[in-house]
Amino acid sequence: MKNCIVAQSGGPTSVINASLSGVISKALDAEQIGTVYGGVNGIQGVLEDNLMNLTERFGEKREDLETLNNTPAMFLGSCRYKLKKEEYDKIFATFEKYNVGYFFYIGGNDSMDTVMQLSNYAIEKGIDVKIMGVPKTVDNDLVGTDHTPGFASAAKFVATTILEVAHDVYIYQPKSVTIFEIMGRDAGWLTAASMLARNEYSSAPDLIYLPEVAFHIDEFVTKIKELLEEKDNLVIAVSEGIKDATGEYVSASSAAVDSFGHKQLSGTGKTLENIVKEQVGCKCRSIELSVVQRAAAHIASQTDITEANQVGRKAVEAAVNGTTGYMATIERVSSNPYKVEFGTVDIKKVANQEKIVPREWVNEEGNNLNEKALEYFAPLIEGEPKITYKNGVPVYLDVSHLRKK
Amino acid sequence: MKNCIVAQSGGPTSVINASLSGVISKALDAEQIGTVYGGVNGIQGVLEDNLMNLTERFGEKREDLETLNNTPAMFLGSCRYKLKKEEYDKIFATFEKYNVGYFFYIGGNDSMDTVMQLSNYAIEKGIDVKIMGVPKTVDNDLVGTDHTPGFASAAKFVATTILEVAHDVYIYQPKSVTIFEIMGRDAGWLTAASMLARNEYSSAPDLIYLPEVAFHIDEFVTKIKELLEEKDNLVIAVSEGIKDATGEYVSASSAAVDSFGHKQLSGTGKTLENIVKEQVGCKCRSIELSVVQRAAAHIASQTDITEANQVGRKAVEAAVNGTTGYMATIERVSSNPYKVEFGTVDIKKVANQEKIVPREWVNEEGNNLNEKALEYFAPLIEGEPKITYKNGVPVYLDVSHLRKK
Repeated sequence: MKNCIVAQSGGPTSVINASLSGVISKALDAEQIGTVYGGVNGIQGVLEDNLMNLTERFGEKREDLETLNNTPAMFLGSCRYKLKKEEYDKIFATFEKYNVGYFFYIGGNDSMDTVMQLSNYAIEKGIDVKIMGVPKTVDNDLVGTDHTPGFASAAKFVATTILEVAHDVYIYQPKSVTIFEIMGRDAGWLTAASMLARNEYSSAPDLIYLPEVAFHIDEFVTKIKELLEEKDNLVIAVSEGIKDATGEYVSASSAAVDSFGHKQLSGTGKTLENIVKEQVGCKCRSIELSVVQRAAAHIASQTDITEANQVGRKAVEAAVNGTTGYMATIERVSSNPYKVEFGTVDIKKVANQEKIVPREWVNEEGNNLNEKALEYFAPLIEGEPKITYKNGVPVYLDVSHLRKK
Repeated sequence: MKNCIVAQSGGPTSVINASLSGVISKALDAEQIGTVYGGVNGIQGVLEDNLMNLTERFGEKREDLETLNNTPAMFLGSCRYKLKKEEYDKIFATFEKYNVGYFFYIGGNDSMDTVMQLSNYAIEKGIDVKIMGVPKTVDNDLVGTDHTPGFASAAKFVATTILEVAHDVYIYQPKSVTIFEIMGRDAGWLTAASMLARNEYSSAPDLIYLPEVAFHIDEFVTKIKELLEEKDNLVIAVSEGIKDATGEYVSASSAAVDSFGHKQLSGTGKTLENIVKEQVGCKCRSIELSVVQRAAAHIASQTDITEANQVGRKAVEAAVNGTTGYMATIERVSSNPYKVEFGTVDIKKVANQEKIVPREWVNEEGNNLNEKALEYFAPLIEGEPKITYKNGVPVYLDVSHLRKK
């Protein structure tokens, strides 16, 4: 009987712990698996022999796995660490030391690359460690899965917030434009899903701009002027990563670069706010939803929580059945009624790929989404989690272990 | 039998419609009151004879008053209109036209000034219209009432969000500072209440800065460096209106220019973010909670909703009993167990006053709040509203009447 390690990586979501909860729960029950360890701060914990004994932590406290389901961000901590080739041996030394036969990595694009590298290495060296990826990202940009756990909860917060702020916006008579800047560097899924804010009385967001479609300032200004003839108060959703026709980011800010070489953007909303003030001349406010949109677990999608948990369990099931170098997936059977199944996909088809919003879901003008998009998004945000409150704020799982020095 | 008008004014809150709901409900039931009208867009609706018949709207649909209780911002629309003396006659002409004997104005400081002016005018001219104020503001800066409806719901959202983002912040190893910019230009109540985010495992916000205490950049930087010796990740709450020792807004000190040549007047959070990056040298992010904090009705405080409704009812009760020129109030009987009564206060004691956070609730260093503050704040955010969801987003009351042109 072998032990297992699970770790979490990249940027947080509201439900990445639901996947962790699913992995732990299934692994605790699996007769092929002995002790369940957690890598603290992602792959760095494995590299530095910094593990947490999750069997000890949760074995006799299975009810805490329920609270874990609803707790935002990574219970095990995260990292943005690009594993070097010369470190693979060290990873497998930790695996050997702890008699590890299974490794589960919950993360996004970069983590799936790590899963691919390590599983290839194991096969190449004839080491019997099954390595499985568990998808996670608010960006929804992983291929091979219908959608990615974490996305729907962020979408539910974004839609709810836009509806609530629309109420705030409609109360004043002077013409106004309110711009929401939403996460999404290259894929506009989350911004597109803001269409879910609309109802019988509210058209917000009136315009939606994605990184997938070239952004033209002139058309943007013209469209706003046109719509302000019909309505006093406009709400607009834009991805942080919208680009002009030359591929240059609209955000004028000097972008910092993280260790993966990603540009860190901010200021797209503010840039557009200034353009509207100058070229349209009406009141304009920009709202950057920032990390709040990926942390708002109190209004997570219950569908998302359930699926995140299931996809974690699926990864364990596949690994104990001998699968390695695969990612657990969600396969949509139908949208209405909504039905999914859980599967696996070869990690080679996932790593270093990016799924973007199909152009045919966007209108010709490039400023709105159509019915196909709505059909895809709508079922994902259904259901509200049962959150326990204490002293007026949500009860989440204690993460004081992350704060030890 | 006389009719009544109710109107809403100023900046929105999550529960200002709960006060409206209380006024309408009590007025519909009051035998002294005939038709209940709403002034559309505050006092401007009265001035311009733009009224909504609320008896028609809600008389046979009392269940909609329940949904109204949970609907953010002003169902009747708002205004930021300073009534001129020469317009008083026009207001009273509308009152006469509609046989109005009672006027209820739900708002903050400026609205209470309007209540004072109009009630004085009525008494002076011998006109029998009872005019009552109903308090509302996320700023909690009205005197004469223990606290102000709207404040607690904003506080609950702020505390919940800071706790959730703390989970997001604690996952990374590199040292970081996260700054929340919270509403409050001159009174720091809402920022102070961010202390409610703290629990057994999370100290966020580690530092709290209010406009009531002079802000010193040097001390701020020194304190952060000191705390970063003990903890890797700090969370800081600041009021948008913090000022230096000369009374100058901290946000006024920075004005960057973007690549379009636009002058970017940064917010307080952004200004401090830049200071931390430069003078502390660690990762720093600022988050402006913007209007989201006053609109997040899905996580309103049920205590706040109930009190907002009750204070609206109290205003009607007082008016039909002959009171004029008063504001309905919340009087705290005890904090633990929490118990309040509803009363009234002479509007002269309220109008044009501002209640600030007592200095003795703030520590000597001016960067934290003490037990007295906690005792005051804690009971206010208790309880969660029962929100109905449809298509994954909250069901609020249709406000399409605000969107007619």
